Amino acid sequence: MLGKLLLFCFCLGNSWVYGQEIMPIYSPNHQLRLSVVRSVAGSLTYQLGYKSKEVIGASSLGIVLKKPAVSLQSFEVLGVDTLSHNEIWTPVWGEEREIRNQYAQLIVHGKSEGILVDFIFRVFNDGIGFRYHFPEQFGFQHFIVNEELSQFRMLGDHTAFWIPGDYDTNEYTYQKTRISEIDAFSAAAKEKDIALTALIGPKVVQSPLMMKSANGIYINIHEAALINYPVMHLGLSGLTIISTLTPDAVGNKAYLQTPFSTPWRTILISDRAEDILASRLILNLNAPTSLRDISWIKPQKFMGMWWEMHVGKANWPLAGGKHGANTANVKRYIDFAAQHGFDGVLVEGWNKGWEDWFGNWKEEVFDFVSPYPDYDIDSLSAYAQKKGLRLIMHHETSGAVTNYERRMTDAYQYMVDKGINTVKTGYVGRIIPRGEHHDSQWMVNHYARVAEKAAAYRLMVDSHESAHPTGLHRTYPNWMASEAARGSEFNNAPTLGILPEHTTILPFTRLLGGPMDYTPGLFHMKLNQFDSTRKTRVQSTLAKQLALYVTIYSPLQMAADLPENYAGRLDAFQFIKDVAVDWDATRILAAEPGEFVTIARKAKGRSDWFIGSITDENARDIRIPLDFLDSGARYEAVIYRDADDADYEKNPEAYVITKSEVTRKSLLTIRLQRGGGCAVRLKKL
Amino acid sequence: MLGKLLLFCFCLGNSWVYGQEIMPIYSPNHQLRLSVVRSVAGSLTYQLGYKSKEVIGASSLGIVLKKPAVSLQSFEVLGVDTLSHNEIWTPVWGEEREIRNQYAQLIVHGKSEGILVDFIFRVFNDGIGFRYHFPEQFGFQHFIVNEELSQFRMLGDHTAFWIPGDYDTNEYTYQKTRISEIDAFSAAAKEKDIALTALIGPKVVQSPLMMKSANGIYINIHEAALINYPVMHLGLSGLTIISTLTPDAVGNKAYLQTPFSTPWRTILISDRAEDILASRLILNLNAPTSLRDISWIKPQKFMGMWWEMHVGKANWPLAGGKHGANTANVKRYIDFAAQHGFDGVLVEGWNKGWEDWFGNWKEEVFDFVSPYPDYDIDSLSAYAQKKGLRLIMHHETSGAVTNYERRMTDAYQYMVDKGINTVKTGYVGRIIPRGEHHDSQWMVNHYARVAEKAAAYRLMVDSHESAHPTGLHRTYPNWMASEAARGSEFNNAPTLGILPEHTTILPFTRLLGGPMDYTPGLFHMKLNQFDSTRKTRVQSTLAKQLALYVTIYSPLQMAADLPENYAGRLDAFQFIKDVAVDWDATRILAAEPGEFVTIARKAKGRSDWFIGSITDENARDIRIPLDFLDSGARYEAVIYRDADDADYEKNPEAYVITKSEVTRKSLLTIRLQRGGGCAVRLKKL
Repeated sequence: MLGKLLLFCFCLGNSWVYGQEIMPIYSPNHQLRLSVVRSVAGSLTYQLGYKSKEVIGASSLGIVLKKPAVSLQSFEVLGVDTLSHNEIWTPVWGEEREIRNQYAQLIVHGKSEGILVDFIFRVFNDGIGFRYHFPEQFGFQHFIVNEELSQFRMLGDHTAFWIPGDYDTNEYTYQKTRISEIDAFSAAAKEKDIALTALIGPKVVQSPLMMKSANGIYINIHEAALINYPVMHLGLSGLTIISTLTPDAVGNKAYLQTPFSTPWRTILISDRAEDILASRLILNLNAPTSLRDISWIKPQKFMGMWWEMHVGKANWPLAGGKHGANTANVKRYIDFAAQHGFDGVLVEGWNKGWEDWFGNWKEEVFDFVSPYPDYDIDSLSAYAQKKGLRLIMHHETSGAVTNYERRMTDAYQYMVDKGINTVKTGYVGRIIPRGEHHDSQWMVNHYARVAEKAAAYRLMVDSHESAHPTGLHRTYPNWMASEAARGSEFNNAPTLGILPEHTTILPFTRLLGGPMDYTPGLFHMKLNQFDSTRKTRVQSTLAKQLALYVTIYSPLQMAADLPENYAGRLDAFQFIKDVAVDWDATRILAAEPGEFVTIARKAKGRSDWFIGSITDENARDIRIPLDFLDSGARYEAVIYRDADDADYEKNPEAYVITKSEVTRKSLLTIRLQRGGGCAVRLKKL
Repeated sequence: MLGKLLLFCFCLGNSWVYGQEIMPIYSPNHQLRLSVVRSVAGSLTYQLGYKSKEVIGASSLGIVLKKPAVSLQSFEVLGVDTLSHNEIWTPVWGEEREIRNQYAQLIVHGKSEGILVDFIFRVFNDGIGFRYHFPEQFGFQHFIVNEELSQFRMLGDHTAFWIPGDYDTNEYTYQKTRISEIDAFSAAAKEKDIALTALIGPKVVQSPLMMKSANGIYINIHEAALINYPVMHLGLSGLTIISTLTPDAVGNKAYLQTPFSTPWRTILISDRAEDILASRLILNLNAPTSLRDISWIKPQKFMGMWWEMHVGKANWPLAGGKHGANTANVKRYIDFAAQHGFDGVLVEGWNKGWEDWFGNWKEEVFDFVSPYPDYDIDSLSAYAQKKGLRLIMHHETSGAVTNYERRMTDAYQYMVDKGINTVKTGYVGRIIPRGEHHDSQWMVNHYARVAEKAAAYRLMVDSHESAHPTGLHRTYPNWMASEAARGSEFNNAPTLGILPEHTTILPFTRLLGGPMDYTPGLFHMKLNQFDSTRKTRVQSTLAKQLALYVTIYSPLQMAADLPENYAGRLDAFQFIKDVAVDWDATRILAAEPGEFVTIARKAKGRSDWFIGSITDENARDIRIPLDFLDSGARYEAVIYRDADDADYEKNPEAYVITKSEVTRKSLLTIRLQRGGGCAVRLKKL
């Protein structure tokens, strides 16, 4: 294969590179050009052009090992392989009925310090992925990674949407600054409501990192298929972004054995923001599921014994006299949820241990099989099933993961015995094994173990406080959703809450990795309903809360507010009842990070479409052409929009519901008020 | 209770103390006097007199907490309680049929930094124990220990028998030096054969620490009832010994919650070395078992597929062509063991994973339920049971304890399904959770979890590479034995091997904590039988190997050598067949650490006695009066002694067996050759 290597000096975009270019590789539509170059000194770099502009400058690749103690940064190139791939596959559930996976692949077979390393690049129409692969080889089998040195060299001081790099939480408010202005410590200092932080450095942020260049190119950096490896954070050296792996208790990054492939490092690129949201690149870079029987995996809508605690009506512990998860109260939820066609009722605070669960780094808090005495799980589970829904179980580990792992077998069998098929896991608090982080390799492996073990018991998983998703729901389709970002619960956080722009950034960042259990649907915006001293409020209009069911994709969607808060507004609640949670098609109609998002989706196996449109703190008029509808068909459009005087600060709960008949030739023009949104149901007539 | 406190200055032994003496407390026989003194500045000290001599000088007590960050070193005394206790209890198995537990107790109720701390002292005839107790109290519940500051102030530069302080191994050769000459790093540097070490400091040693004063007082420091707390190592500051707790991955020592009692800190004292070995103080300071059904717990003798691997005849992995644990070979062991009346056959290397088990800090090595394909566990287990014995299963965790904990349920059920009721656990290698040590709190809790979970499956446990025992076999009588010291396998270690004195020190150190699976019984002393290049040799005579079955107490005793090595010497092997593993009575006839040990024991429920006598590298003549025998009865004495020309270096395998008739008036005079010993069976006629 060495014949393919040419020593020359060449020009790509505006930078000159001296070395061997190892055959250029183009995206299927030829708009992206990836060039991998070996310098005369042996370093391996890639650079990326988009529509004849250079967007990623020469970025070097390498990995430093702790054991053996060698730095793999200078490579001999033994050969290259190329491949083009084009297939269509069907997800178990998702935003589309079918997904095209089309790319050109380049494998550079490298060698450094006697160790064989393959560099695998895939170039899609909407971006690239690359990974390191350590093949089986003589004399090199087990190894410990000290650091990965993957660079992403930006060629301008782009606008970035970012959160501080942190080994233990991703629940920060997004910042919008130039790359050069990133200051993770200052940003974190504004947060007062995150219980546990482990900041990495002033110039370290998290992925997905969304950027926009001065000339309108959208660039997103993340990772795909995070398996048996720590979370990658992103460090900055000038405008160059460098991978920063999460350490374990002794500072090592990963314990590996050949053959091993790192997660993919992904770069999405487009001059249309909508293409970023429409990308399936990350999902395509994950492995298909090995589950054969997927009949038990069902997208679902649920309500829950949960927001009551946040707003101070009830509490998790039995002690204190405000125990929410008592039989009568949960029955009330079941009645309401069943009446309105929900699939599940989440119950938090059902099990013993909440009296001293938090802040003590205590290992033996919960056993996951001991309900509080006032919670009659058997009768409630039977009652729920009689009414056509299921209880959803909560497993708060309090970060004591060793304890959870010891008890998972019993806990999952207990769920099966009780007729419960979905578990919400939680990892609030410092991790045990002590010294590990939420983002370290050991925990990444834990989340996968949970998905795998839950699948063995035919249980669906909704993980909270887990590491950022990387498309693993393709591999583990029972891992329905994660939190792993600032979710709606932060509406009750006193300092920043959820800013109106937050939900317009989430699709460009966190949601690129996978579904989020954001828990939208709050109807009561002043959160002093049960505690008059409370100043917290939902910084959203009610119509926007409805729109989030479309703009935030998840096969698990909660109607987060209390039954009594829905009861008075059943007309608006109707949208939550109607909206689908699984889709045949998705159209990103308009989007700009930090400003607005409009998405239309067609319900799975049905002819109905749903549209969600949201804005930031600015009002705006949106135009939605309905040309995605079936030609010749008529639809009833039910529009849930902000009232004319609605405003997320002054009048958030004012909404208007209108009905009209539309066709694919119709154009909806709707005003989104400040912090507002609209939701549309299009029912084929 | 404050009325009991007197402010005065008093003299105890030769030291003057200024402060309040909080009532002196005497041992039941009045030979020990414990004095607890609160200084004017508030520090709390204890001192100890023995037969009117001061043996432990004023030693202060205290604990430093990390959270809350306070140092508990100055105490207000709120009151005192005293108690005298005298009972006789019956162990499930042991060295005695009944054990007397008699002590005087003093509780000093202290308060420091607003935190209530009780100091509990028990004074026995042969020593003392003390512990810290944190009662339930308002405003103080969860806490983290930074360090314990318990002092043991020696009043002379005693001769000490010690091994280097190390968080991960206790398999060192014992050193005999003055306290002032202790240099743990130099001692450790002489060791080349310990795979994993984590030395603490040049002046830190392990407990039990055996000392002898210039005026002939034997002093031993250890701990009892090590539960939910890290192992205590012993640091030196001049002649004062200070507790040094094992840290976890982040440097903390223990995560606790009130009510909590630390392990007991124990001091054995006598002017007779024999009394140290006869002490049941440590056992008495442990809690009785809570097991109701103990019918399934049986002391046993076993052989095993194990020494073959050490001497190079076979190997653990299947790969390499020397797999020992194949069906035919294990069947050979079963046949031999059954023919000679053994209870079990240990099989190591039976399960998949040995190909890369060591040295990689790899988590997923073994699953404990997957035999190698050439090992037919079902037929072998059935065959063994048909012949009246059981297979003993080996669970080598390779230090990956998280992996083991995840799989314990399945592994123990697998054992039950296979009809196996004893498991040998192993912890070779660096611990996972990474950053934890063999001796840290998390691991201490793990060992207890194993004992508890095994009991739930009616399994007996023989733990190797675990933390030093502290008498927990009273609480967990299915935890039959531990290694936790340099065992017989080190005979095959090239550098130091097992020095002749080693087994005369073990009873004064490691064995005080509990039974040891030392694996005596080697008959073939040059270990080049299967590998002519090997220079290792057993530094013991054959008769001494027999004596170890009596001098090293364990309810699990292995006949460690190969069947073919016993087959040619069935006359000597007869002692191993005859010797008991459970006892009604024990007499320490003569003992001096590092020199000699002679012990007689009466077999449980039988009238036979067995005597073992061993010496160091010096030959010596011993005199054994048989006055412990029943009066008026005649016994057949079978004496297994060193041949006249035996010598552990030159002629180790030469032995003589003689028979005679004896009564309680008889006196045996026997010569122990260099590195030799003798074993005697006394059968009542």
